[in-house]
Amino acid sequence: MENIPHPDISKITLAQVLSALGDPTRLKIIRMAAKAPQPCHAFQGKLSKSTLSHHMKVLRDAGIITQCEQGTQHLTSLRRKELDARFPGILNAVLKSLPADSAHDPH
Amino acid sequence: MENIPHPDISKITLAQVLSALGDPTRLKIIRMAAKAPQPCHAFQGKLSKSTLSHHMKVLRDAGIITQCEQGTQHLTSLRRKELDARFPGILNAVLKSLPADSAHDPH
Repeated sequence: MENIPHPDISKITLAQVLSALGDPTRLKIIRMAAKAPQPCHAFQGKLSKSTLSHHMKVLRDAGIITQCEQGTQHLTSLRRKELDARFPGILNAVLKSLPADSAHDPH
Repeated sequence: MENIPHPDISKITLAQVLSALGDPTRLKIIRMAAKAPQPCHAFQGKLSKSTLSHHMKVLRDAGIITQCEQGTQHLTSLRRKELDARFPGILNAVLKSLPADSAHDPH
């Protein structure tokens, strides 16, 4: 049951995806979401609610994550299949490079 | 004969690389540089000199391109081997996704 608008993946540009991924906090968010869909509080850590909302919106607008309502929570998942179909290999390469680059979560 | 400072690739972060790549003009620059080292005027097109300089600096500071003097020109090349060693697969995936995303050069 989705109630947040998500863009059509065919309208997303490569520059938009790379720009959205080009931030350490957002890279940590996608690394966590890649493991399993997560509720928002899982990403919160030391971030303020408004900062987290901003990062989530950038990732959502770039077609990288999807957020859907589940009860009182929003579950965040990667749009992995769609992104892989549109920009093959990019998300995988980014996720593979992540552990070496950011060994610790921000929180 | 290099006279422009280039960062040590080991100091570059993944976020920095992705952020530098996350711009349509800079994607077009790396697509051209991927074919062969190019003099600056090859990238100029309709860009002003200062705009082109800015984009080149962002790419250089993110360890993506190298610029070296050759006679009166600066030749721009990708730091492909170094980037591939540090962030395997990313540059290749980006270059492969480019033709579909930007069918025409800006100039």
